[in-house]
Amino acid sequence: MNDTAPQQHQQKKILLVTAHPEPRSLNASLAAFAAEHLRTAGHEVQVSDLYAMKWKATVDADDFPDEAGDRRLEVMAASERATLAGRLSADVAAEQEKVRWSDAVILQFPMWWFSMPAILKGWVDRVFTAGFGYGPALPPPYTGSALEGRRALVSVTAGARESSFSDRGIHGRLADVLHPVQHGLFWFTGMAPLEPFVMYNANALPEERFEAAKREYGRRLDGLFTDEPVPFRSLTGGDYDHDMRLLPGVETPGTSGLDLHIRPHN
Amino acid sequence: MNDTAPQQHQQKKILLVTAHPEPRSLNASLAAFAAEHLRTAGHEVQVSDLYAMKWKATVDADDFPDEAGDRRLEVMAASERATLAGRLSADVAAEQEKVRWSDAVILQFPMWWFSMPAILKGWVDRVFTAGFGYGPALPPPYTGSALEGRRALVSVTAGARESSFSDRGIHGRLADVLHPVQHGLFWFTGMAPLEPFVMYNANALPEERFEAAKREYGRRLDGLFTDEPVPFRSLTGGDYDHDMRLLPGVETPGTSGLDLHIRPHN
Repeated sequence: MNDTAPQQHQQKKILLVTAHPEPRSLNASLAAFAAEHLRTAGHEVQVSDLYAMKWKATVDADDFPDEAGDRRLEVMAASERATLAGRLSADVAAEQEKVRWSDAVILQFPMWWFSMPAILKGWVDRVFTAGFGYGPALPPPYTGSALEGRRALVSVTAGARESSFSDRGIHGRLADVLHPVQHGLFWFTGMAPLEPFVMYNANALPEERFEAAKREYGRRLDGLFTDEPVPFRSLTGGDYDHDMRLLPGVETPGTSGLDLHIRPHN
Repeated sequence: MNDTAPQQHQQKKILLVTAHPEPRSLNASLAAFAAEHLRTAGHEVQVSDLYAMKWKATVDADDFPDEAGDRRLEVMAASERATLAGRLSADVAAEQEKVRWSDAVILQFPMWWFSMPAILKGWVDRVFTAGFGYGPALPPPYTGSALEGRRALVSVTAGARESSFSDRGIHGRLADVLHPVQHGLFWFTGMAPLEPFVMYNANALPEERFEAAKREYGRRLDGLFTDEPVPFRSLTGGDYDHDMRLLPGVETPGTSGLDLHIRPHN
């Protein structure tokens, strides 16, 4: 560390959330690499290794002990009440504190069924409560959110080949497959998602490819606070009507589907 | 029931998987309505109420007791070995048996963070093993799959308004948001996904809207075996190259993104 280092070496705080059952897995190696790389660059890193923590994946009534047992559990309302009253369960409160502490959140996971493993989905379901990740009163993107301005990076491993997630790939473009995370979670809560980092063919990875991948991942980590985030449009930027539909003619002609919600390049 | 009923009243078997922690929730009501409606029409219904079953959401080493404890757990390989050897854990084996038994699978869930609740994602992660839902040897769509030909329907509740999931809606079109389920899970395993059934504004639902929604859902359930599935292209239909990319010029001009993978209307 060097106190007179230029701006890009400013010390930042990074929360790394990782979700693989095997401590010797590729995902674990990538998480260890990222933590080491970021610490060497002078940053602070906290790791939430969900399997090691035996993270409770399922939202249930035990999460809301203050709710009367005979009352119908309305999850969003109960979660908002518990959040605003500071009565969340200790595990959830601890993770919220880490997210609040962080300048960037990295999610490291194997793509299972084209999305997160259940244990990580359960981290999202339980930690991003109403009153923390969004709401209660404001429309999305919840600009008063606890999370505004944080950088967000998905680092994912996929068994499939890269071409199958390419522009014309049969599984859909990776950005579209990850839309529920990139736009649904990160953008919705005010965070600034970067392009995902992906390792394809992850089930059969020769050592030299892993070394090359680490170099590429290192460059992405170096750009965590300087790379341009995905330019999703803002709800409050004048592009949407009151029913949250994109206004006619705002998009580049010929654009459709999820691309509608990305600002055109200048 | 009437043995001489026309083809559309033929008795079928339906697996209804439901995932809400509150037995008096809208999701529970919709599941109960669907089960009753389908049984009244002469069908057999099995219900997997994941919260009531205390479904284990997380894939971990306990799922694979035959794997040597000191061996690095490779989830896909371990799951394939356990499936082919008939050594899956009892809860997973029972759910696979229900899926095999069924002519249609319905997933009933509240949309949490633009996808399934963790407990349902954990049902997918654990039940759709290699050797059951796909593979081991064939490319997707795994036409020799245990699941080929089954109908698949998502019935989802969403707090947001319908316009926000419309063609130009800020969250993306519902079909695109559900792509990891519709194409990633259902299509990939050989099933025939129908258009999702959705209830919007689900956090504030007056009784008369619930009655109207049940009538609409009833019509969708009546069409479970006769409605046209989403016309996703087939991997083996000549539309894709060997790298699983859509061949140039196959699509309707101007189509892009996830729409590329839907066959044009005739």
